[in-house]
Formats: sequence, structure tokens, C-alpha cells
Amino acid sequence: MGNTFGHLFRVMTWGESHGPAIGAVIDGCPPLLELSEADIQPDLDRRAPGQSNLVTQRKESDTVQIVSGVFEGRTLGTPISLSIANEDQRSGDYREVATKYRPSHADYTYDAKYGHRDYRGGGRTSARETAGRVAAGAIARKLLVGRYAVEIVAWVSKVERVSVDCDVETVTRDAVERTPIRCPDPAIAASMIAIVQKARKAGNSVGGVVTCAIRGCPPGWGEPVFDRLEADLAKAMMSLPASKGFEIGSGFAGTDLTGLEHNDEFYMSDGRVRTHTNRSGGVQGGITNGETIYFRTAFKPTATVMHEQRTVTRDGQDTTIEGRGRHDPCVLPRAVPLIEAMAALVLADHALRHEAISPRR
Amino acid sequence: MGNTFGHLFRVMTWGESHGPAIGAVIDGCPPLLELSEADIQPDLDRRAPGQSNLVTQRKESDTVQIVSGVFEGRTLGTPISLSIANEDQRSGDYREVATKYRPSHADYTYDAKYGHRDYRGGGRTSARETAGRVAAGAIARKLLVGRYAVEIVAWVSKVERVSVDCDVETVTRDAVERTPIRCPDPAIAASMIAIVQKARKAGNSVGGVVTCAIRGCPPGWGEPVFDRLEADLAKAMMSLPASKGFEIGSGFAGTDLTGLEHNDEFYMSDGRVRTHTNRSGGVQGGITNGETIYFRTAFKPTATVMHEQRTVTRDGQDTTIEGRGRHDPCVLPRAVPLIEAMAALVLADHALRHEAISPRR
Amino acid sequence: MGNTFGHLFRVMTWGESHGPAIGAVIDGCPPLLELSEADIQPDLDRRAPGQSNLVTQRKESDTVQIVSGVFEGRTLGTPISLSIANEDQRSGDYREVATKYRPSHADYTYDAKYGHRDYRGGGRTSARETAGRVAAGAIARKLLVGRYAVEIVAWVSKVERVSVDCDVETVTRDAVERTPIRCPDPAIAASMIAIVQKARKAGNSVGGVVTCAIRGCPPGWGEPVFDRLEADLAKAMMSLPASKGFEIGSGFAGTDLTGLEHNDEFYMSDGRVRTHTNRSGGVQGGITNGETIYFRTAFKPTATVMHEQRTVTRDGQDTTIEGRGRHDPCVLPRAVPLIEAMAALVLADHALRHEAISPRR
Amino acid sequence: MGNTFGHLFRVMTWGESHGPAIGAVIDGCPPLLELSEADIQPDLDRRAPGQSNLVTQRKESDTVQIVSGVFEGRTLGTPISLSIANEDQRSGDYREVATKYRPSHADYTYDAKYGHRDYRGGGRTSARETAGRVAAGAIARKLLVGRYAVEIVAWVSKVERVSVDCDVETVTRDAVERTPIRCPDPAIAASMIAIVQKARKAGNSVGGVVTCAIRGCPPGWGEPVFDRLEADLAKAMMSLPASKGFEIGSGFAGTDLTGLEHNDEFYMSDGRVRTHTNRSGGVQGGITNGETIYFRTAFKPTATVMHEQRTVTRDGQDTTIEGRGRHDPCVLPRAVPLIEAMAALVLADHALRHEAISPRR
Repeated sequence: MGNTFGHLFRVMTWGESHGPAIGAVIDGCPPLLELSEADIQPDLDRRAPGQSNLVTQRKESDTVQIVSGVFEGRTLGTPISLSIANEDQRSGDYREVATKYRPSHADYTYDAKYGHRDYRGGGRTSARETAGRVAAGAIARKLLVGRYAVEIVAWVSKVERVSVDCDVETVTRDAVERTPIRCPDPAIAASMIAIVQKARKAGNSVGGVVTCAIRGCPPGWGEPVFDRLEADLAKAMMSLPASKGFEIGSGFAGTDLTGLEHNDEFYMSDGRVRTHTNRSGGVQGGITNGETIYFRTAFKPTATVMHEQRTVTRDGQDTTIEGRGRHDPCVLPRAVPLIEAMAALVLADHALRHEAISPRR
Repeated sequence: MGNTFGHLFRVMTWGESHGPAIGAVIDGCPPLLELSEADIQPDLDRRAPGQSNLVTQRKESDTVQIVSGVFEGRTLGTPISLSIANEDQRSGDYREVATKYRPSHADYTYDAKYGHRDYRGGGRTSARETAGRVAAGAIARKLLVGRYAVEIVAWVSKVERVSVDCDVETVTRDAVERTPIRCPDPAIAASMIAIVQKARKAGNSVGGVVTCAIRGCPPGWGEPVFDRLEADLAKAMMSLPASKGFEIGSGFAGTDLTGLEHNDEFYMSDGRVRTHTNRSGGVQGGITNGETIYFRTAFKPTATVMHEQRTVTRDGQDTTIEGRGRHDPCVLPRAVPLIEAMAALVLADHALRHEAISPRR
Repeated sequence: MGNTFGHLFRVMTWGESHGPAIGAVIDGCPPLLELSEADIQPDLDRRAPGQSNLVTQRKESDTVQIVSGVFEGRTLGTPISLSIANEDQRSGDYREVATKYRPSHADYTYDAKYGHRDYRGGGRTSARETAGRVAAGAIARKLLVGRYAVEIVAWVSKVERVSVDCDVETVTRDAVERTPIRCPDPAIAASMIAIVQKARKAGNSVGGVVTCAIRGCPPGWGEPVFDRLEADLAKAMMSLPASKGFEIGSGFAGTDLTGLEHNDEFYMSDGRVRTHTNRSGGVQGGITNGETIYFRTAFKPTATVMHEQRTVTRDGQDTTIEGRGRHDPCVLPRAVPLIEAMAALVLADHALRHEAISPRR
Repeated sequence: MGNTFGHLFRVMTWGESHGPAIGAVIDGCPPLLELSEADIQPDLDRRAPGQSNLVTQRKESDTVQIVSGVFEGRTLGTPISLSIANEDQRSGDYREVATKYRPSHADYTYDAKYGHRDYRGGGRTSARETAGRVAAGAIARKLLVGRYAVEIVAWVSKVERVSVDCDVETVTRDAVERTPIRCPDPAIAASMIAIVQKARKAGNSVGGVVTCAIRGCPPGWGEPVFDRLEADLAKAMMSLPASKGFEIGSGFAGTDLTGLEHNDEFYMSDGRVRTHTNRSGGVQGGITNGETIYFRTAFKPTATVMHEQRTVTRDGQDTTIEGRGRHDPCVLPRAVPLIEAMAALVLADHALRHEAISPRR
């Protein structure tokens, strides 16, 4: 359990890092959506390793195949099965990771839960698992863009102690993609890149924050009480590897304000209800109000470092372990398409849920 | 939809603020748990309005009745229906809130979603809805304490700009309950209380942060990928009214550290795997590692303020509105039992999910 | 678990026979549906005991209260909580049923599963549980009638060895309600009544079959593969107490035919696709084709009989037990509104599921 | 939606008849189960076409690959992805089925629902879809056999008008597999085979009934009210292509009996509660009582016949159509492993659900 996400637009992902393939199946995508691999591959390429020397050098072409659910270029309404072959399954020596728990990885907890784990390249706990999410998210996004004109853009807004506040209303994906760190401010991006390079050379790693903006959502999406839109977004983001925090709208900083300062006053604009400010982050009571949704997700520094650290063996002996081989000094640039994919999955699901009970009918 | 939470220990809540009652039904509580209203009422009393002049003065005894699922003092394994009568349904004049949208409340978004809302006291969007969650959470906690010796303690760690860092390993509920603001540090509590009093007098409101510690969880709870324990905790907390942020372990502050600084090194202690530090917050890869789970939830300042604010009418006219009557200048003290309740619901659900596939069998 | 039904139009029922009340909560009913207790009560009255001497004489007015989810006469889109007080909780002597398992009742299996049971009047296993289903089903039916003009009529088509084949296209509820046995053919009804009276006098019981017709469903409802409409109907009917069989369209008798005899050939009629015959029973590949859906449900004879039977005690001794007190010689007439209610719950759920992905958008 | 089955042992199937592959993903299989393709392939071979001239001559080796979830011969607790390549995708001429609806197939209803369908070989509605279920069911059965010693055996008990009553306590799989029709009584099997051969030669088809026995279930599996074991079994069987009826225990025939005749009296045997008869079919109140579970599923005659039949075109013209090419005169023999697979999926799910709340803890 736990590998399934969504109530109506439902995704199940599968696959270990060093098995023959990884993938995802979507049950609930509406029919008649134009779809081909070309709609999915660009997002996978943005997630793929080896794009720059800021990230891991594992070589994976991450070529997606649509194995079912599409016929004559359009979705059938049946499950869409997506498969991505694992190519770079280095035969490497896994004896050490088979018997020692890497600090701040999930080796120990998987053993504690299951009594068995695939230690090759992290198995199911590898970030490779997220390729399936990105592929599924690309389909969700296609639905959102085509049917509802919703736009989702994420970017790196903090690396270690360097951060930037961009305007959530105007950042474009083009601006984001212009730098390998995926920060739309070129000067700040340069500082961030320098930090990552320094960490890479030192065999160390850094974390940071990704901000995401969702523009064009109609009012009324989201469900009250438990399945609030922000609750499902929080779950989606906190399900990503290495994420440690989520905030929407004013977030933690909003706790410095008084109610009078924080409230978003309403006004009419061209017959549409708008708010003067948007500290709510586009949701009130769990439901969209038509303003831009924006949220931030914190990622801890990557757990793999090229230094000796204390740990224990599977059979309970104190020992040490040192990271070797490929090394991802900063997950942030690759987290950007992940955040967008998870946001798209949440929104597509809520769009369909809203259709089901829409009072228009 | 959206009023149901949990996969195996499942809760459905119902009720509007000014209907005859509110309540919850639990489907999935194991049998043979000793249970009576006396196990639930204390948590409801902690959530109830009117406890001090820090919170709203609405008078509700919030007396819970167990209507089903318990026989001869023990749970039957059948649904436990909980009902709490609404007593203080002031006949008040609701003409204004019926036609004007209160800023940063959910009046507008409910109308946008449903085309219809119960405007009396906020209807379903009233914080009163959370009484059902607290009642259900008390049962989940009883299960966790009795069967697994898990302990859950939450406290107010920030009010507006005053904050405190307490030791998540040692804070006791007694210490928390000693001050009406529910902060275990008496000196900081006094400052916080002064801030709330000032806001109350000014007809204004303040927000803040609640920290929660969960001690004694065995390793192995939580599911990989989407239903990570921290993901479900984030969803639970972000489903609470007025919450805007969630972080676990090192959270947002952890992004300032390098991997070498952040990693939790392992060691053996009395045959048990432990970590020297606990920046992971008790979860790695979504699964508990046996260390204390701790997380923080940000609450925005209450939306109701006793000042005129700009808004719009239901039929699209610009206008103003001013808060009247009862007023909750700070939700934080009452959020403490809520956080504990939601944490208990998440953990009870994951405890049962783990039992189902436990490799011990 | 197990007390929740439906994916979008979701019902959770609760309550034991001799607790203070029983009820149901619906999470997922669309907003703006006109609704009051008067829409529900008639179906409850049809299910209620004591309507005639054909059924049990337990006295329950079964008065339903809508406790939440409706405001100013229309549904809010929030959970609809329904409560029905238990009135006739005879103080009777339950010592015997507390310690002996009644044959073909669920006393033993509940003990085996839960280690604990409410033996008063059958507890959760009492047919009384179905009042919550009937109440919820009445709301589903209101939605189906008002929004989609779907009509659901069930009737008793077999009692012991007396059966009747009525035209599924034309039976009316008026005709069904004309006899206390709820068979639309007056002559056959008289025979059936005689059988039940004879069984009642003999302290014995009889079973039979209920047929149900659903007319006016648009083509396209139902989901492929696992959630076929007939699969969900089968689950719904086989979840009713005492049901032992389900068949749709040609059912078991259809196995006597060849493919050439069985196939439903298509033709056009006023621009609509129709079938010359309807052995499919209105569904093909799990999806409605616009023809009348009809199915039959078999109910075993009631397990309570006024005769001594062999059984065992809770602590494993052979013994005997004899039914006493109130006695329901035939559940069939009261099963009619139950079948209709469950059919309505299934259809309302599938109607909403279809709306969510409808290609019209 | 609709392609997912199970609450804890959850299966999602995917694939169209003429796409590159079909498959299934299992989310929720416990870890540490020994598993390889060799555990699955025999059941697939029993389902495969072309085994005898009683069934369709489509050539598919149906070779399964385990793509994830197994490491070093044991399950990981992570999703198990199963893939089966489609080999015999005849290039054939699909122009006719693309534009005309085959009677009693799902061509029309899929078009009505989705506005789009893969007409090649039936697409998603092809019986080929069931290969994924059989593969998943083989894993469920391995769990049931290894952990609980549960045995599942199904056989053909009726073909057209020839039927046989075998002892549900003693039929063995060996006896079933001895005849190509999968009926354990050799003489009756010969009659059945003659019927099928005659239908095949006439370009016609026949239906029938499969009986299934589940032996060795412990008491206590199944959930009350909606998720009764028999309700979930009914849903599972009625989700199979061509199934039109389900009955458990005494079924429809039980309605001929009185309560006194029908009741299963209890007695003690070696400290275990047993019943003298088993008209309940192993379940009481939705929960297993430890006796053999047995049920019957009716399958209509195959819809494809080699004769001209009336139908309509996609654009609403009356026309005729005639079956061509490969032809399956009787699905019964191939339905046997399907029934066993679905039964295994239902039981594995309920086994895990019971573990989660078991009072032993």
C-alpha cells in the first residue's frame, strides 16, 4: 500500500532503481485527451540525471513508453500504463550498502518495516521512483492546460542560505529553464550554482526550497474538512523524497502578522470576485478562490556525502560508511519538475471531483 | 466527499455550527478496547470555547455521547458513532453574513463550490467542526497508548513574534496545561498571553505555531512513496482550519545546513538502532525509525476582527463588513488538542496498516 | 471497516439494534437538492416492522431526523447525518443468546472475528441496521429521479415455491404496494401470503426472491473491469442480510441458451440505439446501454424459528436453543425497499462517477 | 476508474488486446513471500487461448514477467508489476467492427461512455484483460496457501443444459484438469465436450456455470454490513466478462426450503465449532465460520457467433454483422482459473484486513 495517489485521477507507481524498469499506471484519466509520448518526455528530461554537473551523473535516457490507454492519439478512458526502462544499472559492488545502513537514508527503516530490501541503488527508495510520478503528472498537466487553462510553474527559490522572492504571478517556465539551477533570477542563480559547485567539490551537499505557482484555477476546486486542496498539496509535496516542510500563501511568516494585516479583502473586478492581497495563497477553507495558488517546499541536503560517517550494520554492530561513486550534491533543480507533477496530480484529481458534484448541472 | 479520513482507522465527520448537533463516526476501530465517554470528554473540554478569556466566549458544554460501537465498556469492532449537541445556537442576526463575504473566511469559496451555504456561525466551515475530530482522535489515542505505549504531546511554541524552543523529548502535558496559552515555558507563556490580550482588546487577532512530539513509536510505521508518515501528518495538519504551514524534523531551517551537518548518524544502544541527532524528525523514507517524531504547524491569525474591512456582496457589489459579537483573538491554545487528535488519527491508521502486512507473521 | 459504501456518493452506516439510535452519514451528495425528512420517511415506513402480520411485530416508528447537511430545504454538499432512534429496546432476557449461538445467525462468526458482541437483539447484525441504508437510499433516489429521471421499482417475485414473472418494463410501485407481500400480481400475492401465514403459525419461516427494475438510465453509466455496474449491484445486494444469490438479465437461466438465442440484436429507434431483446439486463461490458436494468436477489428463509435446534455455547458445549418472542416469518416484503435503496446508492455513485469523466466536457 | 480492486491487497490492471502488452500492478502484497514467474505461469497457461479446440485458437504464449517488487526471490513489500506481451496482434481488417456494434458485446456501451474505443480485438473489453487478473490472483493464492493453508478449487458444473453436482469438500484440481472442459466427472465432461463441439461446428456458442470451493479458511474473515465476504465475492465474480449470476451456499435453490430445513445447526468437534449442514456456504453475517465456502457463477453463451445478426452502425444506421475468424464457442474452461484468481484476490484482501484488527493482539 501507499503507492497509490488520487481519488478519481488515480496513479499507482512501481519499480526499483535496478530492476528492469520503473513506471506508473493512471486509472481515471478522462477519454478523448490527445496524448503521445511527446507530451511526457520533456518533463522526464527535465527530471533526468546528468543534465548538468549540478546533479548526479547517472546516465539514464528515461525514455517513456505508453503501453496502454491511448488509441489513435487520444486517451481511451482506460488505464494508461507508462514504462521507463532502467538502463544504467551499474553492476557495482553493493556488499557494503547491503550490510550497512547509510545515515539519513531509508535503508534501516525499510529493513525495520519489511525485513527485506533491494539495496542496489536504493531500490524503491531511490529518487528514480519519482520518474513515474513525473510521467503521470505530465498527463495530468495536459488535462489541466487543455480543459481548464491552468498553468503550473515551479522554481528554486533558496539554496542553502541564498534565497530569492520572485513574483508568483509572473515567473515563466522559460525564465526558470534558462539556468541549470532553475532559478528565474540570473544573478541569484549564479550564487546558487556556486554554492552547489562548492558542495560538490567538498563531497558535501546542500538543500533548499522550491516555490510553485498555479495560475488560472477556477474558484470552487477542493473539498472541505480533510481533503482541502492545501492538505492534498501538502501531502503530495511531503511525499517527495527529502522534503521536510510545506507552506502555502503567507505560511510560517504569516504568523508574524495580525489578523488585520493578514486578511485578504475582497473587491469586484469585471464581475469577478477578487482579493486585494493574496496571503491565503489562492485557497480559503480548502477551496480555490480563483487567485494564484502558491506554496513552498523545503528539501533537506542530500543524504549521500563523500565522507566517512558513523553507522551500524544490519546485524547490529557499530561501524562507519563513506559515500562513493555518483553523487547528487543538490536535488533542487531536479525537484522542480517533480513539484509541478505532484501539483498537477492533485489539481487534476480535484478538478474531476468537482465536476462530479458541480452545481451547474 | 472530503469528510472522511484514514484507510483502516477511518473517520467521517459531519455537522454544521448551528444545526442540532455535530459528530463523527469511526469505522475500523479494533474490538475489545475499553472505552467510555470519560475517555473522550477531557480532550473535548480542552478544545471547547470559553475556557479562558484568550479564546472565544461561545458557551458550549460539548458533551459527547457514544451512540454506537461500544458494549459493556468495550468497543465492538463496529462503527463508533459520536454525537455532540450544539447548545449555543444564538438566534442572532445573520442577515449581514448571509449576503456579504467575510474576508479570509470560506464564505465566498463555499458559495463558489456549492452555490449554497449555511451562513449561521460559519456552518460547516466553523471551527466547531473540529470537535468531531477531537472526539475521534481521543479514541485513536486510547488505542495507541494502550496497545503501543505511544505518547503524543503538543504545545504552543510561537504566538505572533514570541517563540520558544522546548525539548521535544521531555515536554509533558502537565506542563502544557499549566498555562491557558498552553506553552510549557511559564515566562514565555506570560509574554504570549500579553500579546493575545492586547489583540483581543484591539479587536484584532494573532497567529502562531504549535509543536507536536510523538514519543515511543516503534520503527516500521508508515508506507513508502505517497503515504509516507510525514505526508499523512502534513495532510492532517494542513486540513485544520487556519493552518498555513507544516514542517517535520529540521524543516525549513534544515535547508541552511549541509548534508554533513544534517545527517543523523546511527549507533547501537542496548541492541537497538538509534541516531545521534534527530534532524529527520523520527521518519526516514516515510517510515518511523523509533526516534521521537516532532513537527510544527503554522496557524494564521484568526480571520474575524472587530474592524471594518472591504468586501463584496453575494450578488457582486463592493461593500464593507465589520466583525461583531464573539471573537477568538487566537486559535492556538485550542489548536493544541486538535493537533494531538489529528496526529493520533494518522498514527492509529498507520499502526493498523502495518499490522496487516507485518513480516513478523 | 466494511460499513462504508460508494466511491463518490459515499454512505457510512452505524448502530446496534438496542443502542440509543442507528443511522447513516452520506458524504458526497451534491448540493442544491431539495430534501427534507418527508422525502425519506415513506421508504422507512415501508421497511419498518409491524406493518402487517406477515412480518415481525417489533414496534418501531423509525422516525428519521436529518441532523446535518441540509439548510433552508436544500442539501449543502456537506455530510448528511441521519439518525433514527431505537424505541422498542425490550428489556427482555438475553442470557440465553448471550451464551448460545443461534443457528444460521452471525452470533458465532462475530465472536470469532471480534471476541466480543452485542447480543441484545442481534446488535449490529440485526436487520435493524438496514434502516440506515434505506434512509440513505431515499436520498440517492431523490437525486436520481430529479436529475436523471431514473425510476427504481422492486417486488417480491417468489415466496418459497410460488413464483411469478412480471413484465419488468411496466410494474408500478402502486401495484407493488397494493398487497402486504409486495407482489404486483394479486392472485399470486394471495398464494404467497397464505404460505407466509402458514409458516408463521408453524413457527417456521420461508425465503424467496425479489426482482428489481431500473428504468430510464442513460447509456454510459458503469465502469469497466472491476467496478462494472452489475458487479457493484451484486455487491450491494449480496451485502443485504439473508441474501444468497444475485442474477442480472438472463441470469442462471440464460445458460440454457445458445449465443444465437441469447444475443440482443441492435436497431435504431427515433435516433436512439435500442436492442430487440434485453437478455443483457441493461448492461453490456459493465456499462448501461439505455435498456431497463433488471436483476433478482434470493433471500434464504429467516434463521429464527420457534423450534428447538441443536447448537453450542460460547464456551464450547453442545446444547439446544429455541426461538422466542417476536418472529419474522418472511423478510421478503421488507426487503423490497432495501433492494430499491441499495440500487439507488449504486446508481447515484455511478452517475457521479460518470459526470466526472463525461466526454461531453 | 474501475480498474482497481481490493482495499489492502490492491490490484490495478491495464492493457488493451492489441496494444504492446497487458498487465497488473499489486500494491499491498506483504514482504518476504517467495515468488518467481514460475508461481504465476501455470495459472496463465490454464487461462491461455489455444489449449484445446474447445476454446479460441488465438495464439498467445502469455509469458509473464515480474518487473518489480521481488528481489532475491522474495517479495519486497513494494508494488509488484506484472507484464505480459501481446504477441498475436493480427493485422486483420477491423474496418467492420470499427463502425458496427457487435450484438451483446460492449462496443456500443464503450462508445456511449467514452466517445472513443480501441476496436482492435475488443480493446480493453477483450477477455485478454483477464490475464492480468489471473497473474495477480496467482500471487494472492501463494500468500493464502503459504500463510493460511487455504485451498481454492473451481470446476465447470454446467454447460448449456448438462450439469453435475460434485462434492465441494473433495473435488481436486487434478481431477478438474483431467478433462479439457475442466469438469471433474469424466462422463459428464464427455457430454459437455460434445455440446461445445457441436456449437463450434454450428458457429454457435454455449454458456454454463462454474462452481468454486474454498477450503481451510479460518473463522473470522470478512467484514460486516457492506464488505461481507459474499458481497465481495459476488462483486469479484460479476466483474468477470460474460458473468450473469452468482449464488453462494444454498443460493436460489435455498428459497424452496423453510427455515427449519435450511438452518445449519452447530456442534462441537475436537474443540472446534462446526455445522451439521453447510447451506450457509461457509459465511454467516458476511464472516467465515470455518466451513467450506462454495459458490456458483453463471456465464452467458459467448457473444461472438458465426452468423449474420442485426445491428447498427456507429453513425446510427441499421445494418447486419457476422462473426468471422477466431471464435470461442464456450468460455467455461478458461473461466475456471479466472474464478480461482478472483476468489484468491478477495480472500487475500480480507485476510490482511482481518490481521489489521485481529483481537489476538
